[in-house]
Amino acid sequence: SAPFDPAEHSHRRRNPLTGQWVLVSPHRAKRPWQGRQETAAEAVLPRHDPACYLCAGNTRVNGQTNPDYRGPFVFTNDHAALMPAVPDAPAGDALFQSQAARGTSRVICFSPDHSRTLPELARDEIVAVVDTWCEQSAELGREHAWVQVFENKGEIMGCSQPHPHGQIWATGFLPNEAATEDAQQRDWFAAHGRALLLDVAEREAGGERVVVQNDDWLAIVPFWATWPFETLLLPRFAVQRLPQLTAAQRASLADALKRLTSRYDNLFRCSFPYSMGWHGAPFDARDAAPWQLHAHFYPPLLRSATVRKFMVGFEMLAEAQRDLTPEQAAEKLRAVSDVHYKEPA
Amino acid sequence: SAPFDPAEHSHRRRNPLTGQWVLVSPHRAKRPWQGRQETAAEAVLPRHDPACYLCAGNTRVNGQTNPDYRGPFVFTNDHAALMPAVPDAPAGDALFQSQAARGTSRVICFSPDHSRTLPELARDEIVAVVDTWCEQSAELGREHAWVQVFENKGEIMGCSQPHPHGQIWATGFLPNEAATEDAQQRDWFAAHGRALLLDVAEREAGGERVVVQNDDWLAIVPFWATWPFETLLLPRFAVQRLPQLTAAQRASLADALKRLTSRYDNLFRCSFPYSMGWHGAPFDARDAAPWQLHAHFYPPLLRSATVRKFMVGFEMLAEAQRDLTPEQAAEKLRAVSDVHYKEPA
Ligand SMILES: O=P(O)(O)O[C@H]1O[C@H](CO)[C@@H](O)[C@H](O)[C@H]1O
Ligand SMILES: O=P(O)(O)O[C@H]1O[C@H](CO)[C@@H](O)[C@H](O)[C@H]1O
Repeated sequence: SAPFDPAEHSHRRRNPLTGQWVLVSPHRAKRPWQGRQETAAEAVLPRHDPACYLCAGNTRVNGQTNPDYRGPFVFTNDHAALMPAVPDAPAGDALFQSQAARGTSRVICFSPDHSRTLPELARDEIVAVVDTWCEQSAELGREHAWVQVFENKGEIMGCSQPHPHGQIWATGFLPNEAATEDAQQRDWFAAHGRALLLDVAEREAGGERVVVQNDDWLAIVPFWATWPFETLLLPRFAVQRLPQLTAAQRASLADALKRLTSRYDNLFRCSFPYSMGWHGAPFDARDAAPWQLHAHFYPPLLRSATVRKFMVGFEMLAEAQRDLTPEQAAEKLRAVSDVHYKEPA
Repeated sequence: SAPFDPAEHSHRRRNPLTGQWVLVSPHRAKRPWQGRQETAAEAVLPRHDPACYLCAGNTRVNGQTNPDYRGPFVFTNDHAALMPAVPDAPAGDALFQSQAARGTSRVICFSPDHSRTLPELARDEIVAVVDTWCEQSAELGREHAWVQVFENKGEIMGCSQPHPHGQIWATGFLPNEAATEDAQQRDWFAAHGRALLLDVAEREAGGERVVVQNDDWLAIVPFWATWPFETLLLPRFAVQRLPQLTAAQRASLADALKRLTSRYDNLFRCSFPYSMGWHGAPFDARDAAPWQLHAHFYPPLLRSATVRKFMVGFEMLAEAQRDLTPEQAAEKLRAVSDVHYKEPA
C-alpha cells in the first residue's frame, strides 16, 4: 500500500506547549461548502469618526472624554470583566470549587487613526504599540501574576469597535492556558535543559513552516496549528517577558508584525480577522528560565474572505480538526507579498 | 465591605470533568452591545426539498441516491474527516510528534422531514433517534476506542445543511476531551469511590441549576458552565454507555430532550443553535465504573436570537469567560415553557 503522506492521509499532531492533539484531515479540503458565508464588509473608514468611542476627543459611554491623543492611548475598560476589589469567595467543596477573581481590564487604541489597522501603520507607529505592550506589562506585572495582552480583530472575532485597538486583562491568578503552558515548558526544561520554544525556533528557522523571518524573530505556522492559518511568533534569542525586549528587538518585532499581518491581509485581500495575544513567564514565577516569550495568532478564515473554519461539534466535544496541513498554509502565506495590498508601491 | 455575592462579584469556578476554570463576570451583563448581529433567519422550510442532499429519494454530491427512508437514516459522510485505511505515520520526535488517525464519519438524518428539528419531532420520533445513537455506538464501538455522537445545529454552528441531522465520528484513538474526562473521572473515583457525575446528579436534583428533570434524567446548567446557556444532561442512575440504556430509559430520555430543546427554542423564540454530543466510557476501557454517560449542549446565544457570546481573545489565550451566572441562566430557561412555541396548544 501507499506510504504515509501527511498531505493525503488523516493524522494527529501533538502540541508540546499544551499537550493537546489536533486531527489533520487534508483530503477534506476538497469538500464543497454550502453553509454560512461571512460578510466581507470593506467599508472605507474615516480617519476620525465623531461617533466612535475610541477616537480622540470623543466622549465614551460612561461620560468620560478621550484626550487628544497622538500615539497609542490606554484606558480602563468601561465594562471591565475584572475589577481590583472583590471580597473572598467561599472555597466550596470538591464538586463546586470557586475563588474570587481580581484584576483589571484596559483598552489600547493603537493610534488616533480610526482607519488604519496594525499592518497599515508605519513601522515606527508599530514600535509605539510594542512599547505600550511592554510598559503596560511591566506596570501591571508588579501587582498581577498574569498580564494578558491581546487583540480581537474583526467583528467575526467579537470585536465590537472598528477603531483599531487591543486589550490587556491582568489577573491575580494564572488562567488555564497560562497554567498549562507553564507546566509543559517546565517539564520540557526539566527533561532537556533548554527552553522548549528556543528549540522550536532553532529547528524551524529557514524551514517549510516559516512565514516571516528576520534576524530576531520567526513567524511560523506551527507543526501543531489548529486554526487554518494560525501562526506562532517566536524570538530567536532567549527572552521570558515583553518588558525585557531591547529597543533594537522592538524595532525588529515591529518589522515582523508588519510583514506577518500584511501577508494575512494579502492572502484573501481583506482585513484578515484574528485573535492574537502574548504569552510570557508569569510575573510571580520564581524561575522564568523554562519560558520563552511568544505571540499566538488565531485567525478563523479558511478558504476566502467569506468562508471560515468552524470549531464546533467534534472540535468542542472531542478534538480540534483542520483541513489543509500547516505546511500548505505556510506555503500559501509565503506565496503572497509581505507588503500590504493597500500600501502605495 | 460587602460580603461575596456570586451574582455581583467576579470569580472563577472549576470544572471537575476537565480540571479547567471559568471566569464569571456577572456585572458585565450590563454592557451595551454594538458589535456583530447574527441573522435570525426563520425561513419556513418545506417538508421535502428537492434540492436537499439529505432528503429522501434525492441524489447526493457523490452521485448516490438516498433511499425513501421513513425514520432516521444513517450514511457515511461523503467528505469524511476520518477514513478507515491510513498507513502508519512516522512517530517523529519529542518536538514534532504525529500518528496516523483512523476512523469513520457518518451522518444521521433525524427524520425524512426537512422542516422539523429535534424539539419539533414527536416523542416516539425522538426515541427512534435515541435508538439510532445507541445502535450506531454499539456497532462502531466494536472496532473503535471512541464514538463521538454529536449535532451541530444552526449555520452559526457551522451546520451546512438545514435538514435536521447529527453526525458520528468514530476514532481508533481517544480524542483530547475524552482523554481529559477519562483521567478526571478516574481520579474522582479513586478518591471518592463513586462516579463523579452520579455525585453531581444527586447534589443537583431539585436545585437552582435544574432546567429539566424527570425520574431518570436531569438537565442542569452546570456550576462550571462556560457557554451562557450551556447544559449538561445527566442520567440519575449508573450507566456508562449509550447502548446500555433500556427501552424505558430511552423513552424518558426522549422526554427530557424534547423538553430541554423546547425550552431552548422558547428562550429567544428562534431555532436555538448549539453543538451537542454524547460522552460515555471509551469502548476499549477495561474499567468503565468511574464513567457516567452524559450529553453536553454548547449553545452560543447570549442575549437574543441575534447577539451571541464570542469565545475569542482572552478566552482563546487565557481562560473562558461568562457574563450571567449559571444560576441566572437556569432561572431564565425554567421561566419559559417546556412545550415548543410552534406546537399547537
Ligand atoms: O461536516 P460538516 O457538518 O460539513 O462540518 C461541520 O462540522 C464539523 C465537525 O464538528 C467541523 O469540523 C466543521 O468545521 C463544521 O463546519
Ligand atoms: O470586551 P469586548 O471587546 O467588548 O469583548 C470581546 O472580547 C472579550 C475578551 O476576549 C470577550 O470576552 C467577548 O466575548 C468579546 O465580545
